[in-house]
Amino acid sequence: MLKRYLPVLTWLPHYHRRLFGADLLAGVIVTVMVIPQSLAYAILAGLPAVVGLYASILPAVLYALLGTSRTLAVGPVAIIALMTGAALSGVATPGSPDYLAAALVLSLLSGAMLVAMGLLRLGFFANFLSHPVIAGFLSASAVLIAASQAAHLLGISASGYTVTALLASMAGNLAQTHWPTLAIGAGTLLFLIAMRRHGQSLLQRLGLAPATAALLTRAGPVLAVVATTALTWHFSLAERGVAVIGAIPAGIPPLTLPLFELELWQALLVPALLISVVGFVESISMAQMLAARRRQRISPNQELIGLGGANLAAAFSAGMPVTGGLSRTVINDEAGAQTPLAGLFAALGIGLVTLLFTPLLHHLPIATLAATIIVAILTLVDLPMIRQTWRYSRSDFSAMAVTILLTLVEGVEAGIISGVVLSIGLFLYRTSRPHSAVVGRIPGTEHFRSVERHEVETLSHVAFLRIDESLYFANARYLEDTLHALVVRHPGLEHVVLICSAVNLIDASALESLDATNARLRDADVTLHLAEVKGPVMDRLKRSDFLDDITGRVFLSTYAAWQALGASSTASS
Amino acid sequence: MLKRYLPVLTWLPHYHRRLFGADLLAGVIVTVMVIPQSLAYAILAGLPAVVGLYASILPAVLYALLGTSRTLAVGPVAIIALMTGAALSGVATPGSPDYLAAALVLSLLSGAMLVAMGLLRLGFFANFLSHPVIAGFLSASAVLIAASQAAHLLGISASGYTVTALLASMAGNLAQTHWPTLAIGAGTLLFLIAMRRHGQSLLQRLGLAPATAALLTRAGPVLAVVATTALTWHFSLAERGVAVIGAIPAGIPPLTLPLFELELWQALLVPALLISVVGFVESISMAQMLAARRRQRISPNQELIGLGGANLAAAFSAGMPVTGGLSRTVINDEAGAQTPLAGLFAALGIGLVTLLFTPLLHHLPIATLAATIIVAILTLVDLPMIRQTWRYSRSDFSAMAVTILLTLVEGVEAGIISGVVLSIGLFLYRTSRPHSAVVGRIPGTEHFRSVERHEVETLSHVAFLRIDESLYFANARYLEDTLHALVVRHPGLEHVVLICSAVNLIDASALESLDATNARLRDADVTLHLAEVKGPVMDRLKRSDFLDDITGRVFLSTYAAWQALGASSTASS
Repeated sequence: MLKRYLPVLTWLPHYHRRLFGADLLAGVIVTVMVIPQSLAYAILAGLPAVVGLYASILPAVLYALLGTSRTLAVGPVAIIALMTGAALSGVATPGSPDYLAAALVLSLLSGAMLVAMGLLRLGFFANFLSHPVIAGFLSASAVLIAASQAAHLLGISASGYTVTALLASMAGNLAQTHWPTLAIGAGTLLFLIAMRRHGQSLLQRLGLAPATAALLTRAGPVLAVVATTALTWHFSLAERGVAVIGAIPAGIPPLTLPLFELELWQALLVPALLISVVGFVESISMAQMLAARRRQRISPNQELIGLGGANLAAAFSAGMPVTGGLSRTVINDEAGAQTPLAGLFAALGIGLVTLLFTPLLHHLPIATLAATIIVAILTLVDLPMIRQTWRYSRSDFSAMAVTILLTLVEGVEAGIISGVVLSIGLFLYRTSRPHSAVVGRIPGTEHFRSVERHEVETLSHVAFLRIDESLYFANARYLEDTLHALVVRHPGLEHVVLICSAVNLIDASALESLDATNARLRDADVTLHLAEVKGPVMDRLKRSDFLDDITGRVFLSTYAAWQALGASSTASS
Repeated sequence: MLKRYLPVLTWLPHYHRRLFGADLLAGVIVTVMVIPQSLAYAILAGLPAVVGLYASILPAVLYALLGTSRTLAVGPVAIIALMTGAALSGVATPGSPDYLAAALVLSLLSGAMLVAMGLLRLGFFANFLSHPVIAGFLSASAVLIAASQAAHLLGISASGYTVTALLASMAGNLAQTHWPTLAIGAGTLLFLIAMRRHGQSLLQRLGLAPATAALLTRAGPVLAVVATTALTWHFSLAERGVAVIGAIPAGIPPLTLPLFELELWQALLVPALLISVVGFVESISMAQMLAARRRQRISPNQELIGLGGANLAAAFSAGMPVTGGLSRTVINDEAGAQTPLAGLFAALGIGLVTLLFTPLLHHLPIATLAATIIVAILTLVDLPMIRQTWRYSRSDFSAMAVTILLTLVEGVEAGIISGVVLSIGLFLYRTSRPHSAVVGRIPGTEHFRSVERHEVETLSHVAFLRIDESLYFANARYLEDTLHALVVRHPGLEHVVLICSAVNLIDASALESLDATNARLRDADVTLHLAEVKGPVMDRLKRSDFLDDITGRVFLSTYAAWQALGASSTASS
């Protein structure tokens, strides 16, 4: 029991000394690598850069104790930072103390919701986000993030959390483009793209082992940060108007207490829920992929608790909403992390940097960070997935297209909510008009196939109708209409056999419709029979009066119904 | 085309003179019978009594021209009046001109939505209201209505649209109970209950034909209205404090133009949608029942247009939201109406009353109307349905229980919305954890059944898994987990055959999961096969790359897979 809620107890007692070296090295590498992105995502959310560091310390410790994934790295991530900024800008002015306070409340609410969902075993909630909706949402969010960062590259200001607002405010300020800033930003951008495209093969050609080459390639952002910071410091570019991180207060994260202000809580409730669900989906996908590769198991409900604990920790240590991040996890994994101890070491490392080395970050240009974000984020634009979805299913594609469009034009919340609502609505619509087929017997066999697709025998006074869907409220009326139309089309009909081989459920609405249909058919002197009713469905029907009221019988197989009802006449093919 | 949108053209050209007498008689009877309830429902909505008359004139004319049901009678009904009152009290003070204006806007929005849904053929929206949710909503609304009318019986004032608010305000005013009012109200109540219980048999014993006796029994409210009005007038009870209808402005309904005020429209958007959907469901159920009995057909989408037209007419003639009413339709049907002309005659009749005879209604006690509403409405409390649902399905019952509880405690809107959301959520939850079974072969046959329920043969290196649900986003992850667990449980496994006989759909999310599962099984040296894939599902799979990527084959039947994969080994039972 204790082990279930404290997964640290499952791995710490078996810890080997030889794992220690690997975990320590991974911790050091992650420390160096994630500092630039942590700063950048805090700025993306409209928060002071140091908040990104704070959110990488205590939350990572909590996840290491409570999480079930061995190598997932938790901290600020791009999408969640974007959603955080969009949510906070609705309740406070960026830069104000209220804005900072609201970030803590958002972390607290999100953490509390995640823990509650974990304890109530509500991990399945994440399933309501269909893959096309997630892919559409991530692609559109990436475009939004890139657009917001483009302003930092140009050294101009831009505000808003929709593509239209961003472009409008950028267009107005384009004349103020700051050329030295653009030079740094564009240089970094080109360097990072070149590293990503050719770094690996170049370094390997220089004689490095593939693994080392991969790691060094990923260190591109660190190199860019060091180089541009040195440049900016050496030429005093900050005094010439290049925006830099500036002074960061040194010290460990302060203890903070989120405000209890009912109105603020209410305003942040829906954003917190969306951040929780999206963060969980991003994190669990990553964790499951890693676990499958290493043949380990993760528990979705305990993951909710782990991420919830991390967000609660963020709320009490001046942080911001966090989740398991794609890029930081890949770095951790490839740096050779073996257990969550690597995460603890990284947290310790970032804590040390925050305590001692923040002056080194003073001259880091914002444009460098913007370039690193743009390069990292545009990998989320999943064009192949969009193309593939278009080809496979127009219905899935339309949910995806609406998600993309609304995320871009109306913002992240409208995008994700409409995507979820639309995909559920389309699924219900599809199941509300189920496929059904009048079937006949393939001559000489016990098999029955559609009269429209196959050469089959039929009986003139018996109709066999196979219905290819569970019967529930959304299609109850449709079933009534289908049977009614069938009887109207065949005036000589005496029996209707409803084949239920694909019916996995009959709910109370459908039962009432069946009852009504039974009565209506009886009035028209047609007998209603059922065939191939599944075990669980039959068990449930026995709890109602329907089996007493039905005019006909329940046959085990369609063939049994054919034999019993066809005895009185001859088949025609 | 014209006939589709103007159903009047289908029946008017074939009109016989002998139908005329029946329709005229029905029109006269309906006129007399529905006046008390029209007044009462307007008061229930917090509107002047005359609004109920206005809403029974032009709206009924529009429905007669546009509707497809021959005998449905349209006008104010109890549930819609309750919902109207709840919606309007949120935006204006009852009795104020703003309140009246808001009623027109609500009618307009509701009418426009119904027409739009009809033109877009969105009638299936009504299917999202499951039968238990409807039954729960109607039962709880009936209790709410009865509670609000109880105050009129006592002659005290009560306000609110939840049971708690109503009871609290009544408890505070109980000391002001007006005894003459209570005497009239209680007397009417007892008379009406007695009529309903024993009227029919009593009148038949007095020698009347059953049909005449039924009609006279239904005339109970009219008798009560005449008697108590005469009593109140004769003894000048109004001057002693018995609340009466009072002066009603004589004349035909005035032409009204609904306000265009953006904020008001926004506030009434959701209530108008709920009123439209609930009104449509009530009306269409009634219309379908009648059509089935008379072997006529109605068109749900044209019914939307008919009801929409009626509500638009209400908006422009000082009315209130209307729909096809249960009790007025039963009266019309039993009075012998043959065509919508009966509805036109009734509209004409009520128009005449409004023009000439409103002084007769001056002394009609409100308590009499309250008693008629209570007796009519409590038939909607459907205890057998509640009991039956509890027995048949806990899941359906829980949606019903939440609907009842929230309707009573939080009001009609919260009740119906939570009912719909919960029933959809529960359906998705059920389908997100589909039933699946590892199956084996019944010795000597081509049939396969669950290894847990039957004595079957299995192959040690092949697992046959039958999945009893369509594969879509909500259960995509579940399928992955199920297959993963299956492989972990059976170390010697070489093949997995997924039997898709109950899979009616594979959406893009499920396809991606199948792809991922295929890759994961390949890594574990297990081959994935499909069997019994349905035609439409197979057609769709051919549009993706999955059939090229799958490690195994697609078998037409499970038995074919058994033969092909079992050839290399022997079966064990």
